[in-house]
Amino acid sequence: MLYLVGLGLGDAKDITVKGLEVVRRCSRVYLEAYTSVLTVGKEALEEFYGRELILADRDLVELEAEEILKEADTSDVAFLVVGDPFGATTHSDLVLRAVHAGISYRVVHNASIMNAVGCCGLQLYSFGETVSIVFWDDDWKPESFYDKIKKNRSMGLHSLCLLDIKVKEQSIENLMRGRKVYEPPRFMSVSQAAGQLLEVIRRRREEGEELGLTEDTLCVGVARVGAEDQVIRTATLRQLGSCDLGPPLHSLVVTGRLHPLEVDMLRLSAAPDALAHLEVEDSSTS
Amino acid sequence: MLYLVGLGLGDAKDITVKGLEVVRRCSRVYLEAYTSVLTVGKEALEEFYGRELILADRDLVELEAEEILKEADTSDVAFLVVGDPFGATTHSDLVLRAVHAGISYRVVHNASIMNAVGCCGLQLYSFGETVSIVFWDDDWKPESFYDKIKKNRSMGLHSLCLLDIKVKEQSIENLMRGRKVYEPPRFMSVSQAAGQLLEVIRRRREEGEELGLTEDTLCVGVARVGAEDQVIRTATLRQLGSCDLGPPLHSLVVTGRLHPLEVDMLRLSAAPDALAHLEVEDSSTS
Repeated sequence: MLYLVGLGLGDAKDITVKGLEVVRRCSRVYLEAYTSVLTVGKEALEEFYGRELILADRDLVELEAEEILKEADTSDVAFLVVGDPFGATTHSDLVLRAVHAGISYRVVHNASIMNAVGCCGLQLYSFGETVSIVFWDDDWKPESFYDKIKKNRSMGLHSLCLLDIKVKEQSIENLMRGRKVYEPPRFMSVSQAAGQLLEVIRRRREEGEELGLTEDTLCVGVARVGAEDQVIRTATLRQLGSCDLGPPLHSLVVTGRLHPLEVDMLRLSAAPDALAHLEVEDSSTS
Repeated sequence: MLYLVGLGLGDAKDITVKGLEVVRRCSRVYLEAYTSVLTVGKEALEEFYGRELILADRDLVELEAEEILKEADTSDVAFLVVGDPFGATTHSDLVLRAVHAGISYRVVHNASIMNAVGCCGLQLYSFGETVSIVFWDDDWKPESFYDKIKKNRSMGLHSLCLLDIKVKEQSIENLMRGRKVYEPPRFMSVSQAAGQLLEVIRRRREEGEELGLTEDTLCVGVARVGAEDQVIRTATLRQLGSCDLGPPLHSLVVTGRLHPLEVDMLRLSAAPDALAHLEVEDSSTS
């Protein structure tokens, strides 16, 4: 049996009781290590679970899935994923390989940012399509995330923006020379995401486009949701462009139309100087 | 401290290790009992947690919240919610009351249908706005759920439809006579939801409206997601209109544009006679 076990969002104790039982009885336990991170590392998990974990990077999961599935027809193998197992496409691929090899699978669900973001006070059923914001570089500055947010806002819906993660990436030089040397991991911060959005807004304004959001649009930056030191900051996009919410992971929410109860909840995490914008946004959209 | 603890979706062991520790050390533990249900009852939870639970119905949470918050400034009180704590609006209200009474709160997240529905193989970031389908009665047949699904599909997005729950409802006669006599709980099934959708489609077709979905649109019915006996059934809307997926809770997904990997995943849960539609849908939308 292949078990896909969600670890939730915070630390070692966010695994479910069911998930912990699975981890403790499986013959091999893999830890997926490239689509998300907890606030604690592999060693802390190993100590709490009382089990050795095998780190599974993208290469192992995508290119050597047979290794993970080896003997899973006769013994139990666990594949641990931060958040919920179905957050990333590659995990569907692993399930399909298992099924086609005649191996049964079970899922132990857990919280992911897709539902835990409700802690900021915005109602989950008022969110539109989820948006991914990728790191820009000198040559590649895609703007499709802006258009998706604009579309969601035009329908009054909030946008959850998942921020880019670069783990075990190679520089172009190392890639071309075939050297397995990896860059340090990078996690996009709320201020970096806001900065890219602000740049798109500037450019679109110059082009005379009718804007879907502005520097004063009310947003919520969240960091380390579910952990002891989680941060929720409600502020304008401009304000979030210069905020520091600490270590990863970060996500950004761009609000749509606000219900009065949502406004009351946002007040709990709004800096005093953001409250003026909160009230403006409220009266203009409700 | 007020703890809002998510219980996840299946049975007693779907609570997180962190959540279980909270439950075991709090002085009072409430179980929210009107927005969702697990596959096990209060007694099974009490036995596993080793704690007595106080059932919190809608009246208690909305009208007597002070009762729940009593002494939570000096002791620890837990409020248990099936799924994740921020699935329902009333829980935001409880948080606001706590904060305004000077009581701190913490959230222990867990899986909810909003993210666990990914188990059907559809990618979570390809879902649009979440839709609620309410029970029709003789006088009240709202159709707004159809329009939301149509809008999502026009953008190629899937629609998660949350199905109505009626717990501790009074008949109009009992309500008018002030008798606290309650009807048996009702949970909308996938076939009931599909039936209402099929009726809207028939009516809109008669009115000559361009349809956003038809009897042959590919849908996924899910039941008891996360439990041992969960069911995932991929079929046309017409087929789901006469399916029986067993005990509650049920949810319905109406697909949008399908990615080839999603099609491969849906095949795992598609009845043989649904595969033809799957292929039709696939080639016409991808």
